[in-house]
Amino acid sequence: MKTIGIVTSGGDAPGMNAAIRAVTRIAAYNGMSVIGFERGWEGLISGLVRPLNARSVSGIINMGGTILHTTRCPHIQTSEGRAKAAACLAKHKVDGLVVIGGDGSFRAARALGEKIDTLMVGVPATIDNDVYGTDETIGFDTAVDTAIGMVDKIRDTAISHERMFIVEVMGRKRGFLASMVGLTVGAEIILVPEVPFKEQRLFDIIRANESMGKRSAIIIAAEGIGDTRKLALDIEENTGLETRLSVLGYAQRGGSPTARSRYLASEFGSKAVELLSDDKGGLITTLREGRVMSFSLEESVRTEKPLDPAILKLAEILAT
Amino acid sequence: MKTIGIVTSGGDAPGMNAAIRAVTRIAAYNGMSVIGFERGWEGLISGLVRPLNARSVSGIINMGGTILHTTRCPHIQTSEGRAKAAACLAKHKVDGLVVIGGDGSFRAARALGEKIDTLMVGVPATIDNDVYGTDETIGFDTAVDTAIGMVDKIRDTAISHERMFIVEVMGRKRGFLASMVGLTVGAEIILVPEVPFKEQRLFDIIRANESMGKRSAIIIAAEGIGDTRKLALDIEENTGLETRLSVLGYAQRGGSPTARSRYLASEFGSKAVELLSDDKGGLITTLREGRVMSFSLEESVRTEKPLDPAILKLAEILAT
Amino acid sequence: MKTIGIVTSGGDAPGMNAAIRAVTRIAAYNGMSVIGFERGWEGLISGLVRPLNARSVSGIINMGGTILHTTRCPHIQTSEGRAKAAACLAKHKVDGLVVIGGDGSFRAARALGEKIDTLMVGVPATIDNDVYGTDETIGFDTAVDTAIGMVDKIRDTAISHERMFIVEVMGRKRGFLASMVGLTVGAEIILVPEVPFKEQRLFDIIRANESMGKRSAIIIAAEGIGDTRKLALDIEENTGLETRLSVLGYAQRGGSPTARSRYLASEFGSKAVELLSDDKGGLITTLREGRVMSFSLEESVRTEKPLDPAILKLAEILAT
Amino acid sequence: MKTIGIVTSGGDAPGMNAAIRAVTRIAAYNGMSVIGFERGWEGLISGLVRPLNARSVSGIINMGGTILHTTRCPHIQTSEGRAKAAACLAKHKVDGLVVIGGDGSFRAARALGEKIDTLMVGVPATIDNDVYGTDETIGFDTAVDTAIGMVDKIRDTAISHERMFIVEVMGRKRGFLASMVGLTVGAEIILVPEVPFKEQRLFDIIRANESMGKRSAIIIAAEGIGDTRKLALDIEENTGLETRLSVLGYAQRGGSPTARSRYLASEFGSKAVELLSDDKGGLITTLREGRVMSFSLEESVRTEKPLDPAILKLAEILAT
Repeated sequence: MKTIGIVTSGGDAPGMNAAIRAVTRIAAYNGMSVIGFERGWEGLISGLVRPLNARSVSGIINMGGTILHTTRCPHIQTSEGRAKAAACLAKHKVDGLVVIGGDGSFRAARALGEKIDTLMVGVPATIDNDVYGTDETIGFDTAVDTAIGMVDKIRDTAISHERMFIVEVMGRKRGFLASMVGLTVGAEIILVPEVPFKEQRLFDIIRANESMGKRSAIIIAAEGIGDTRKLALDIEENTGLETRLSVLGYAQRGGSPTARSRYLASEFGSKAVELLSDDKGGLITTLREGRVMSFSLEESVRTEKPLDPAILKLAEILAT
Repeated sequence: MKTIGIVTSGGDAPGMNAAIRAVTRIAAYNGMSVIGFERGWEGLISGLVRPLNARSVSGIINMGGTILHTTRCPHIQTSEGRAKAAACLAKHKVDGLVVIGGDGSFRAARALGEKIDTLMVGVPATIDNDVYGTDETIGFDTAVDTAIGMVDKIRDTAISHERMFIVEVMGRKRGFLASMVGLTVGAEIILVPEVPFKEQRLFDIIRANESMGKRSAIIIAAEGIGDTRKLALDIEENTGLETRLSVLGYAQRGGSPTARSRYLASEFGSKAVELLSDDKGGLITTLREGRVMSFSLEESVRTEKPLDPAILKLAEILAT
Repeated sequence: MKTIGIVTSGGDAPGMNAAIRAVTRIAAYNGMSVIGFERGWEGLISGLVRPLNARSVSGIINMGGTILHTTRCPHIQTSEGRAKAAACLAKHKVDGLVVIGGDGSFRAARALGEKIDTLMVGVPATIDNDVYGTDETIGFDTAVDTAIGMVDKIRDTAISHERMFIVEVMGRKRGFLASMVGLTVGAEIILVPEVPFKEQRLFDIIRANESMGKRSAIIIAAEGIGDTRKLALDIEENTGLETRLSVLGYAQRGGSPTARSRYLASEFGSKAVELLSDDKGGLITTLREGRVMSFSLEESVRTEKPLDPAILKLAEILAT
Repeated sequence: MKTIGIVTSGGDAPGMNAAIRAVTRIAAYNGMSVIGFERGWEGLISGLVRPLNARSVSGIINMGGTILHTTRCPHIQTSEGRAKAAACLAKHKVDGLVVIGGDGSFRAARALGEKIDTLMVGVPATIDNDVYGTDETIGFDTAVDTAIGMVDKIRDTAISHERMFIVEVMGRKRGFLASMVGLTVGAEIILVPEVPFKEQRLFDIIRANESMGKRSAIIIAAEGIGDTRKLALDIEENTGLETRLSVLGYAQRGGSPTARSRYLASEFGSKAVELLSDDKGGLITTLREGRVMSFSLEESVRTEKPLDPAILKLAEILAT
């Protein structure tokens, strides 16, 4: 293993820079060269390379976003795109590629890795936490903390005005973020895409709360549950209680990573280089049973990560 | 002046609690009694009173929202509502009423004050900063800081993805918040209700930026400028650049007040009691020429506060 | 199990309130009564009790400190103190006591539990993370995040002035906090009580950094490593580089808990009630292998938790 | 006015970068060249120059510290040092020099400006707020907000443990920071260098508070008031109440500037260029009577800024 490439792909996540730093410095420490590819897969296809060394990743551990930039790049899903990427890796003699991103990025890495010698190692970094094989992804903890900071502020207004609030958090398909945010802000109700709900039941809970003297409530909803605007109107109409909607939006993605996101980025980045040093590819770095390990890339992208229903149940009891 | 009443009305603003604390403690220090009315004007109409003393406002200086709760109460705009409120003030022998809120609250206070002996003093507290006669309102500084904290995070994502972002901040009618946020995050473009704009000009600026190598930009838009969702689509269509919308929403209203909001609340609260002690009413507390003073309530509600165009001009030059 | 008691003891930690809330609500959900003892063990000795129910723990999940207050209470270490505490538990018919605190609190719980029927369950909550049997304690994550927020600010000044900074973090005996803070701020050097160091080696590292053009550095030191004031002077004298000391102090203990601290508090609180419901005592709740479990109280207090040297090694490589 | 120089000098303050950005962009907008001098006055003496343009100050508005670095440089106080600095300004044809810093920096600017043609304009930037002629300096608001954030956390611990806390904030000679922090955290006692105090009076206040049931208190002390460590011991000994000391330290200096610090930096930077464009020197930019203006540099450095005793009086009443 002489030369390692790094690409950040898909949606950005806080801690991606800390992971770039870790991969680069551990590789440099072990005498390897490091090349960064810019703008996600587009950088491999168009040859946007940036040599990285210990100094060029200085001062980025606490920065949100990714210094390598990222895009969503459908081109990598074509055989032509992959051929160009393969040629680029060959040209720069990249023995191992560290792919920092989420599920979609890993799918592309698997397809690309099938036909070439460059070893692929995925480093899970997405605020959605939806990568099978790891209990946690880089950036998830930061996104949760950012979201609860905003919800704590909204709670001030909810209580002052004695209103219902629906707070929509990110998560088009999955409810990991919504369920953790909901549990830790003490939300009265949590709605996730994985668990169908009946509006009538919501109205019942809200009315039951009101009859106990609770005049305000926070409903945390993943964006994937449907039209939250309509839901707010329906609640207001059916319960007679003022209901507001707040969509947290992109602020959840950015910001300086929490210690935990930086820690995970450092450990995952280190593990990725260790795997490549041992000539192991087709893997992702993972946190399982409290330890940093590796897991099959193939199996990760093939399997849907289950949402733990116990957290929703706990949140429900604790909100009573 | 023996008994002072306090009401918080309209949208909540960070620092309202610090103002309640200041009014209560200064009044108590001067030997007066203090009565809080709950849920804004509704509290005066329905007689929801809570006696306040130095101890009951302990530990609230750093809390967002208002412990007295608030509502928007159309009832106070009727003569019947005002009659009930007047009766309530008479019943509790309230000599002076401190109204903590914004423009709408002061309008109600003026109307109510016309026919009764209770003196009215307004304490400007609104994140919109749209009260004529004062350079700043309680809560404005906090809302700006909260908003720039979120925009700084969004900037991480904007740069990483090399995207345009429209960030919608509060302000249905006025652009005070938008212009200050825009200036202090270094927004490329600021849109406020007071200044009409042509979409074509936006496209030109964005393309000029792009030709200089700026691949991402932040557009700060007050909610009152129109349909920001449509604007994002139009920009994407006309410039070919990915454009996202983020609506900051209610998180801008809450949270622990900044030092400046707490300071202003303490000074305004103190001034309000001083005015009432001197048997002066029909006034609001103000910050003008860097000093805490008073100003005619009548003139304040009758006049629209102008937006300083110099800030927009400065922001435009600084964003080049 | 009809009545559960709760006591928070030792140094306060962010998330204690979230744990009180969880124990109370889970217990109430299961039909049990809950009694809070105030001011740590003193509350059991002096009979300072406060009945708790689902409503009385409302709105505290995001509050730092502990609503039950806490003290360091040497009296509980005497047989007389324990006798009084036992009598108090008997008087209030407390079947199970949840002790929220650290190592010292658990030691007292074990001693107290030996002679009485009340079952003891410990919930680890301390920013020091020094409880054997659990990978993490409530409050640790928050303290790390608070500390790195402060160090990130100090880094601004360190770089602007091109200075060395020693930042002393809490930890009289153990280096868990220092090592995690050091890793996640990218500290050039980390000093912990568990690993003896020679000043000469520090000087060498600092000079080596300087020769590579690094004119500023952050040294994270646990308070237990000795006289940091002297160390700063020694570094300045031996390297000729301006060196400043910053002691982070008590701000590390307080503040709104992070999502992770709230999560852990919710899970541990729930687990504690589950154990007591099953008539199990003499246990602590733990996070091990990524799961919430229980562990012998006896073994926990008898064993010193080892510091993982791999984190220090990783931090050292990543700081190069 | 063709070429403007910028130097940041003395202790760093949040917002210095925003000021560098404003000066550079306003100057560039008006067709001038800009040169930055690095490491404060040392840069003028040793010729450490860095050309600045609109692009080189991109992305710094929200960064703490100063990209130009700063030092305390006694050399500029010698005639030899000033001769070298004058020669450097002449060599680079600097018509106007913007000095971003505090009192000491302005003193040096005045001395340097006496013998040369380069016009001097001071931009007040110091967390101490101790510059005569301006109501506020860049960085002051941020330092106050950072400090109150830390004190709010310490308050959690103070209340939980029912303890006294002395919190030492920056301010070797002046109490502007301490008095504003004290007022806005609701400190029970504020100690500043400008107002001598008797320990006995402190003990009396603390005992009076205790007799009213207040078991915890926050004392905000400027570092210039003397030995806070001894004071803590004296209070503990004389009142019998546990008393802790927390020195906030260098974290007060760094961090992303608040909106207000960024606003002031933008306005001051703009004003500085405007003054130089009008061939005006020997001035500082100021905020007076709520407006951005200029003020005599000579008079500013010759006069000590008075501390407003009304703030301390207000804080005292509000803390009862």
